[in-house]
Amino acid sequence: MTGGASPSWPLALEDVPRWDLDHEVVVVGQGVAGGAAAIEAARAGADTVVLERMTRGGGATALSTGITYFGGGTPIQRACGFDDTPEDMLAYVRLAAGEQADPERVRLYCEGSLEHFEWFRALGVEFNESFLDDKVTHPLTDACLTFSGNEDAWPFSEQVRPAPRGHKPAREGEAGGYLMEAVLQGTAAAGATPVTECRAERLVQASDRRVVGVVARRERERIFVKARRGVVLATGGFVMNRAMLAKHAPPLLRCNYPLGTAGDDGSGIRMGTGAGGEAVNMSEGLVLNAYYPPSSHLKGVLVDALGRRFINEDAYLGRTSDAILHKADGRAYLIVDDAIYGRTQAFHKLVAVEESFEALEKALRMPSGVLVRTLEHYNAGVGRGEDVLFHKALRYLRPLQDPPFGALDCSTDNSVFGVFTLGGLAVRATGEVLDADGQAVSGLFAAGRCTAGLCREGRSYASGLSIGDASFFGRLAGRQAARAASWE
Amino acid sequence: MTGGASPSWPLALEDVPRWDLDHEVVVVGQGVAGGAAAIEAARAGADTVVLERMTRGGGATALSTGITYFGGGTPIQRACGFDDTPEDMLAYVRLAAGEQADPERVRLYCEGSLEHFEWFRALGVEFNESFLDDKVTHPLTDACLTFSGNEDAWPFSEQVRPAPRGHKPAREGEAGGYLMEAVLQGTAAAGATPVTECRAERLVQASDRRVVGVVARRERERIFVKARRGVVLATGGFVMNRAMLAKHAPPLLRCNYPLGTAGDDGSGIRMGTGAGGEAVNMSEGLVLNAYYPPSSHLKGVLVDALGRRFINEDAYLGRTSDAILHKADGRAYLIVDDAIYGRTQAFHKLVAVEESFEALEKALRMPSGVLVRTLEHYNAGVGRGEDVLFHKALRYLRPLQDPPFGALDCSTDNSVFGVFTLGGLAVRATGEVLDADGQAVSGLFAAGRCTAGLCREGRSYASGLSIGDASFFGRLAGRQAARAASWE
Repeated sequence: MTGGASPSWPLALEDVPRWDLDHEVVVVGQGVAGGAAAIEAARAGADTVVLERMTRGGGATALSTGITYFGGGTPIQRACGFDDTPEDMLAYVRLAAGEQADPERVRLYCEGSLEHFEWFRALGVEFNESFLDDKVTHPLTDACLTFSGNEDAWPFSEQVRPAPRGHKPAREGEAGGYLMEAVLQGTAAAGATPVTECRAERLVQASDRRVVGVVARRERERIFVKARRGVVLATGGFVMNRAMLAKHAPPLLRCNYPLGTAGDDGSGIRMGTGAGGEAVNMSEGLVLNAYYPPSSHLKGVLVDALGRRFINEDAYLGRTSDAILHKADGRAYLIVDDAIYGRTQAFHKLVAVEESFEALEKALRMPSGVLVRTLEHYNAGVGRGEDVLFHKALRYLRPLQDPPFGALDCSTDNSVFGVFTLGGLAVRATGEVLDADGQAVSGLFAAGRCTAGLCREGRSYASGLSIGDASFFGRLAGRQAARAASWE
Repeated sequence: MTGGASPSWPLALEDVPRWDLDHEVVVVGQGVAGGAAAIEAARAGADTVVLERMTRGGGATALSTGITYFGGGTPIQRACGFDDTPEDMLAYVRLAAGEQADPERVRLYCEGSLEHFEWFRALGVEFNESFLDDKVTHPLTDACLTFSGNEDAWPFSEQVRPAPRGHKPAREGEAGGYLMEAVLQGTAAAGATPVTECRAERLVQASDRRVVGVVARRERERIFVKARRGVVLATGGFVMNRAMLAKHAPPLLRCNYPLGTAGDDGSGIRMGTGAGGEAVNMSEGLVLNAYYPPSSHLKGVLVDALGRRFINEDAYLGRTSDAILHKADGRAYLIVDDAIYGRTQAFHKLVAVEESFEALEKALRMPSGVLVRTLEHYNAGVGRGEDVLFHKALRYLRPLQDPPFGALDCSTDNSVFGVFTLGGLAVRATGEVLDADGQAVSGLFAAGRCTAGLCREGRSYASGLSIGDASFFGRLAGRQAARAASWE
């Protein structure tokens, strides 16, 4: 064994000095994807171990609101009076997942959504029968159901009957930790063995390319973990790895608030590609610049550095933020008046307050007349009850007319831009990692943000699609690994 | 040996049944990168073979105008009265190569440009001492020197003293074939052996990851080619592979005119990643929608589907086309009047001709008043000698005032969008292929469009940077492979 002790260089089977652990299924990472995989692998009868680099599992999900995207008529949707159907959900998730999404994956996800919801409830996760009728980015009450994407925003609202599908567990504040506690307990209950503070470093690969184990570091010791049936990579994305962002998704470098844990360093993606897997969709990410709450800010006007609009302000913030980054080159302002301005989440600075559009335009150093024209044109349309450029919903159409007028800076270099990655290993819906020619790398499975999963585009994303994707397809990957033939 | 006879699955050395050919350096692909690599490897004393899948070498370069990006004071620049310096060239290429470019690569390219120009002349490529003082996309005279990028367009023109650096060989029409003939003859003269109609299928790799050969198909026969010192991949990009575009660069799928040969199918990238190399920058490409000549069209106004401008019309077409694709969502029109409208290259349809701005706006089904306002605002600025939004150069500022007014459709689905890819294997400037952790894959080198090379972004690209990149760094890769230690 010469050099190369890095994730992207698998260890040859013949160079393994000993096996310190010996299991049928080895899951790498105990976020929601790895947790779901371990539960299902163990329930399928496989002797399963989960290697977690932190002192405790949880992953990025444990840091989140815990909103998960379910639909097709969940008990919560019905109790709250929403008549969602699997067909409507499928039609919407097709749009939300993006043009490059795997249709099979989208179909399975929507068909299985009610069962998947009950799977979480059976783990002990509770959901209240309540609807949060407000546009918030980060709901902190224990209400469950929200419109968590673009369902009720143009152009989606014209294409599919809107229904709220974001389901937050019944806890105030961040509920992701609560959700993950249930998953961690479920993992132990299913009989899978968690090994914490154990960081996977490399895969072990036989000469026929089959993945047969993992090299890991546990405290100061290097251990060799045999995987008789399969390894499931569930290591998270790569938003914490700036070198990887530069190589694959440079615009995301402009976002200053990575959403994830230190584990989201792309190591699983590198392990997978080193073993022959392909990394795809690597340029995509979800970008989040939250200029609301208060939801009255959706009645404001978002403009670029020249003073021109470029998106409907009431779209999901993944969509508006993507537009700020790509269409407005990362420089934008939300223009508000005194009537709609409210207390923000302190993610933005009020960089100008003036008594007239003209003065505001001047204060923002915009080309003469452009912002004034934008706001006059917007107000005139609103007077007729329409947004001719971007079709913002009627309930957010209100003229800006109460001075003073203010500008909230929504630029990448002067406000908070959350970000995580949406690219990773190419996998079948059932979790097999694929090479660049579409052949499965035997013995290797993956789920969650280390894969190119359900949703491929930030601009169409809805909150809850990542936890939904990772948990749903983590389960499938765990089952598939458990039923793979043993190599020894 | 089980299954997996695909580029992304290297053959294990132990499974090689025999060696049909045995060389020190094996170059895969005989476009300008492979040709340059073979010449330098052979000149360095290495026994060198070039495998070319077509009946004759040439690659995408042979289909091109042959414009190559040289500067820093070439004999042609001096003869034409342009006072370029290596420092100005470096400052400009830094911008043109993009933020993610390798600074070392940019520096080497600019420092070596005069020598590289003479290298081509020594191969017999002639360049006339003449400057083409017109904005054309596809020069068909035998004039040499052109402004082939954004040198004289905003914002580049404000940052670096402009100089023309596109050098076309002294042939009318397409001159790329002429340039490649010189390279092919130079390859033979240097003593490298070309083997045509021989398609590389897979790499051969030893258990320590060293690349030691190539499996190829020659007519109906599979042959095994030993590479004692190194393999140089010079197989071109992946623009002909729609599945790869979907996985890595979906927006490029909207472009209907791939620029390349059938060989640009990404096979070299897949061979390289299968052997442990990393593919980076994969989402980037050069997109070309040529609404000029005639250069009078640069006096027109490019608008999106809503009737709003989004770029200075006199930028290099790689920049304007990138903006059409990404900022205007692929739907744009060039608005002209009777005075500037001229015979086009038939890449565009004149989809509306009207006597007034109002009628044109209506004919194009744009929101009421927006296009009219855009054109009135533009004309007013032009009257003051300025383009306040996008800073088009003074020489192209002229009011649209002579009816009828026309709209050339510059949309992706109704005009010609040329495209090639700018992503590929991560390589050092000297050609070593790198894995995802930055370690070299021993015995493997690459150059040209199968690598992430000199220029990383279509929006800053200049014509001639690809032939320049591929030939310059092909030479370095050939030399480096020739001096690698022999494995046997």
